[in-house]
Amino acid sequence: MPNGDEFGLIARLFAPLAASHDGALGLTDDCALFAGADGAQWAVTADAMVAGVHFFPDDPPDLIARKLMRVNLSDLAAKGAVARFVLMTVCFPRDVTTDWLDRFAAGLKADCREFSVALIGGDTVTTPGPLTLSLTALGELPAGSAILRSNARSGHRIWVSGTIGDGAFGLLVAKGEGQGLSQAHQAVLLDRYRLPQPRTLLGPALRGLAAAAMDISDGLVGDLGHICDCSQVGAEIEAVKLPLSDAAAAAIATGMGQGLATALTGGDDYELLFTAPPELSDKIAALAFGLGLRLTPIGRIIPGHGVRVIDAEGRSVALAQGGYNHFAAEPKAT
Amino acid sequence: MPNGDEFGLIARLFAPLAASHDGALGLTDDCALFAGADGAQWAVTADAMVAGVHFFPDDPPDLIARKLMRVNLSDLAAKGAVARFVLMTVCFPRDVTTDWLDRFAAGLKADCREFSVALIGGDTVTTPGPLTLSLTALGELPAGSAILRSNARSGHRIWVSGTIGDGAFGLLVAKGEGQGLSQAHQAVLLDRYRLPQPRTLLGPALRGLAAAAMDISDGLVGDLGHICDCSQVGAEIEAVKLPLSDAAAAAIATGMGQGLATALTGGDDYELLFTAPPELSDKIAALAFGLGLRLTPIGRIIPGHGVRVIDAEGRSVALAQGGYNHFAAEPKAT
Repeated sequence: MPNGDEFGLIARLFAPLAASHDGALGLTDDCALFAGADGAQWAVTADAMVAGVHFFPDDPPDLIARKLMRVNLSDLAAKGAVARFVLMTVCFPRDVTTDWLDRFAAGLKADCREFSVALIGGDTVTTPGPLTLSLTALGELPAGSAILRSNARSGHRIWVSGTIGDGAFGLLVAKGEGQGLSQAHQAVLLDRYRLPQPRTLLGPALRGLAAAAMDISDGLVGDLGHICDCSQVGAEIEAVKLPLSDAAAAAIATGMGQGLATALTGGDDYELLFTAPPELSDKIAALAFGLGLRLTPIGRIIPGHGVRVIDAEGRSVALAQGGYNHFAAEPKAT
Repeated sequence: MPNGDEFGLIARLFAPLAASHDGALGLTDDCALFAGADGAQWAVTADAMVAGVHFFPDDPPDLIARKLMRVNLSDLAAKGAVARFVLMTVCFPRDVTTDWLDRFAAGLKADCREFSVALIGGDTVTTPGPLTLSLTALGELPAGSAILRSNARSGHRIWVSGTIGDGAFGLLVAKGEGQGLSQAHQAVLLDRYRLPQPRTLLGPALRGLAAAAMDISDGLVGDLGHICDCSQVGAEIEAVKLPLSDAAAAAIATGMGQGLATALTGGDDYELLFTAPPELSDKIAALAFGLGLRLTPIGRIIPGHGVRVIDAEGRSVALAQGGYNHFAAEPKAT
């Protein structure tokens, strides 16, 4: 890929085409916004997934459909929007079987039901290449209430939902690198990789609490870097505060991948990352209790730029890469 | 492709997932509809294009981008909507060059400007397969004014905009089958194939005049069949009334493709097909004059079902196929 990474490409070639609509947010946020009915606003996002790049070609077809759905619902949730509609374009290899199609549609149906979403359009074509999917998701929220990446301010606490790193370790398990782990831990991590849990209840509940938010899809450190870039601030994360599942802790203990660095920079968590003034911490803790969902403060927004990870002694933790870049690496399932 | 064609697949597997939203129109129309601001409604559509299937891999990149845009704007126009926003997902082969990307973006920019559309989101990823594009387009129209496929009634006149068959003959020219034609005619047809002219002014102007409408993307006869299916009526077209460009007439005269049948059933015209009560014919003729765009009555809606094409003597014209089916044929550029 010439001219740098995905983000550089978007900024150089495509962001100028967004300039005429403020709600496009310069193509730097999880969603774009446009006018809805009765004081509401629509949030819209689109993501593509390619077999062999974003998932394994032999993954269960129902899980492929559900992951496609969920990575997009995660973007809506990150802005505080409630998902309503999806449009899907599917490019099927010509040898796709009836059984595969039925299972794919069953997965889509399950998630349409689970998330109260209607499929309202799309396109089905064939391709001589790998299975290629694209989904556009539309969600609603009160006008002006979207939780943008650009509103993080120095002094805010940085929070994450759920546990971090499971998706990245799950990918390693899928690649056969989980031998040091128990079967139960492997199963947990694999499930977290294949079937993300978009925080569709948390996102709307964060309106009025979180100042800035995004979903963690390309890795915590890299994604937090996007909030910092959009807000023109820096961030400091305390590695010791990172919420880890038992399975991810076991993976780190066995030295899987890059250990803690994999949890910090690996993709596919689909948890929410948000910032809030410290005086709202009690309300956020109460929200966590109400939702039965772990919400953990992991650091703070500081003046400056970029993301620094510190260990228990306050020393910087060196990281090889900030996050997954779709163009910097060879194609891989992530 | 098992289980019949694209339309059978959508009806069986995906239409049930649309049932919870009336505005999805059962996935049988060009667009879906949902609520907008201040008495407006949004129309949304998504189409995918794959190199080697929907266009030639070595087509000029600016024209690929513009065709992607225009096939979607054509769907919006068919419902009477005014285009506002697009989201694009692009799966680039990894060997894409800077020059190619720049030309692709330039084409997209030209059409964003020409059609007053903002790019508000999307995704860029790499693929080991062919260049694969998907675009979602959003347009606005007054609530309740969409021109649906389901409102054709017996006695309506059937109209088409522009000229029919140029896209299909243009594809044959692109495949090197245009030797019998003058260079000028080849150029006209090739341009019509590569750079459709979505009827973005006509569509909104047809609100209140046309009863049913759609855009002709898969071939006149097949697409009219969709209007008939949705409206539970039949249709009769007079072949002699088909508006042909000089270039298409020359192509038919040289026996290119299947001759007249290619014009009747070939894809890629991106003209509008609509029905209207006969008493509105004068107003439609006046609209044609005002827009400087040919609008031609080619037949009438009748009781029954299906599409019949008759010659000057009133005899049925036999046609091998109704329209292009993305799953019935080998992959081909169309």
